[in-house]
Amino acid sequence: MSVTYPRGFAAAATTAGLKPSGTPDLALVHNTGESDAVAAVYTSNRCRANPVLWSQQASADGRARAVVLNSGGANCYTGSFGFETTHATAERTAELLDIDALDVLVCSTGLIGVGGQDFRDRILAGLPALAETAQAAPAGGEAAARAIMTTDTVPKTVEREGTAYRIGGMAKGAGMLAPGLATMLVVLTTDAVLDASELDAALRTATARSFDRLDTDGCMSTNDTVILMSSGASGHRADTGEFTALLTEACEDLTHQLHIDAEGAGHDIVITTRGAFSEEQALEVSRAVGRSNLFKAAVFGEDPNWGRVVAQVGITSAQFEPDAIDVTFNGVPVCVASSPGADPSEVLFDRRVVVEIDLHAGTAEGTILTSDLTHDYVEENSAYST
Amino acid sequence: MSVTYPRGFAAAATTAGLKPSGTPDLALVHNTGESDAVAAVYTSNRCRANPVLWSQQASADGRARAVVLNSGGANCYTGSFGFETTHATAERTAELLDIDALDVLVCSTGLIGVGGQDFRDRILAGLPALAETAQAAPAGGEAAARAIMTTDTVPKTVEREGTAYRIGGMAKGAGMLAPGLATMLVVLTTDAVLDASELDAALRTATARSFDRLDTDGCMSTNDTVILMSSGASGHRADTGEFTALLTEACEDLTHQLHIDAEGAGHDIVITTRGAFSEEQALEVSRAVGRSNLFKAAVFGEDPNWGRVVAQVGITSAQFEPDAIDVTFNGVPVCVASSPGADPSEVLFDRRVVVEIDLHAGTAEGTILTSDLTHDYVEENSAYST
Repeated sequence: MSVTYPRGFAAAATTAGLKPSGTPDLALVHNTGESDAVAAVYTSNRCRANPVLWSQQASADGRARAVVLNSGGANCYTGSFGFETTHATAERTAELLDIDALDVLVCSTGLIGVGGQDFRDRILAGLPALAETAQAAPAGGEAAARAIMTTDTVPKTVEREGTAYRIGGMAKGAGMLAPGLATMLVVLTTDAVLDASELDAALRTATARSFDRLDTDGCMSTNDTVILMSSGASGHRADTGEFTALLTEACEDLTHQLHIDAEGAGHDIVITTRGAFSEEQALEVSRAVGRSNLFKAAVFGEDPNWGRVVAQVGITSAQFEPDAIDVTFNGVPVCVASSPGADPSEVLFDRRVVVEIDLHAGTAEGTILTSDLTHDYVEENSAYST
Repeated sequence: MSVTYPRGFAAAATTAGLKPSGTPDLALVHNTGESDAVAAVYTSNRCRANPVLWSQQASADGRARAVVLNSGGANCYTGSFGFETTHATAERTAELLDIDALDVLVCSTGLIGVGGQDFRDRILAGLPALAETAQAAPAGGEAAARAIMTTDTVPKTVEREGTAYRIGGMAKGAGMLAPGLATMLVVLTTDAVLDASELDAALRTATARSFDRLDTDGCMSTNDTVILMSSGASGHRADTGEFTALLTEACEDLTHQLHIDAEGAGHDIVITTRGAFSEEQALEVSRAVGRSNLFKAAVFGEDPNWGRVVAQVGITSAQFEPDAIDVTFNGVPVCVASSPGADPSEVLFDRRVVVEIDLHAGTAEGTILTSDLTHDYVEENSAYST
């Protein structure tokens, strides 16, 4: 299922030997349908990995036939040699699938700086088996989802059914670079008949409401990529409104899976700001709170430390009266009108922690998902590359 | 010494019972000289503690005679009751010193939300002994520096001698709210003859080059205050250029003391960005790197993970070519032209870690001081208020 739930897609995985664990590390998603329409969004980090530089160019015309993804190396800051590796990956895949190299997108994830001769050799050597498997057993969506895992503990996949068409998808990572090597890579597929500009509009709406609101540690990856391909194999011209809603649902589902599997997290934190002048300001406040190490460490200690919430509200540009802020932790109003409210010991903690902030400055709201700051986070990220 | 190193100042400390430890927690600095000129800078957090709200008004006329400081409670988000407590503190101090209440500045540090009846009662009850001690034994600069400590392990004081005048100072905290309750409070004193506008210009220059560049965990306190008072007791009209340079030196000295005593820190990190188009852009880059949890966790693990440095450069608005970034860790060029350089295992780690980034986009440079992300940081900040 996963990316092969919609008709017109083949997917497969193989082990190229990029990961010390010896688990599968190379994946392919091949659009075999009539349409080759594609849309993609990439990291806004100005230092981008070679596969991102390549795929941005290759997808600019709204057409792509295949995506090759590897874990075990980010191929980022590896110079022109690294770019040539990405290029060679696309060329070789194109040969094997009998398509154009500029219709092959490439995604990489793993350690920055890894992308040398050995990395190149192993990927190129792994491609024939990958293409062969995709042709012999095309329904390899689950295998592909497993091959892109890095520190993920479970594969992330999604399926949705619309009016006579389907949407499928797979994801890895925990949002941003964060934590560790958890670049977010997402491939979404559909057999609905939609052109590239319709896919692009739907994808931008869906990502803005899902992946963009997951901010586990404030760090932005050099490799983040979300790709949406349409095979048109349903023959059904989808209603764009319904499709966008369904795609958003699928992306929210994957976002939730990324959130609860964030590396080193002890609590899944949901921060909603209400009563804001605008949605943008609500999101700014929720994000500022979600990026406070003091707040995140307090949640790890199950301490409903509302002072650290209000202090973060104060560094934003949002409209509010400093005397009128309310904060609840899991429904308990611990801060009312910027003063102590209910006894913080009334707050019951669980894996999921919901923090609600009311600015009393309007009617807009916005939610950001984050994780707590834990010993595991420090441990995993201090001991990662060496 | 400390704030009583210059002539014309009395200082003292007492135990008001605000801290569970039972150590001194209330301090006074009294300007007994001819001049009552003052300058101050306050947190730019829009949610400000009651003592900040009071002191901003009280110091707006460039005149002040005394500063009362307490640890054991931030008196922040404590509503109008908390503001009345600050007001009552100033009124009572003014009575005891026979000065005007609007010439008394107030600083508080400790937990947000603490500032109720008990807090008020203990402070007001402690003030007579404080004023008495300051009169009986005015040279209490060291005692005052100890009374404002919270999680500081050592008091921070400074003395500098100019041409026929002196500068003294004391500080507590670790910059920003960060970490824990480490609001930064600083009182600087001088017996040089300078008016309030000259003090203000010197203080803004000095703080911009010192305290503003210390960013231990990216969180901004609601209580940060830096006050500079002149007694004029030297009778010497200081050269403003010399005075500004000496004051900057004193502030840099206190900043260094705050840096190496940052709560939970295992490494003192110095991040210098060179080759920037402007000093502002150099500081933006250094600060972005200093706020990356991934980078800070890597330093804790003594892992010279330069990929996490370059990834942060990419989220800034600074001018640079993504292919031309150099990074050194303690002098070892681990990243050259955005590609792997020297073997990272050549980097020798010590308590002090110097990271240098060259953008090759100009000639400006800027340095930010920060700390690593450690288990102690998580522990202290997760177990603080409860």
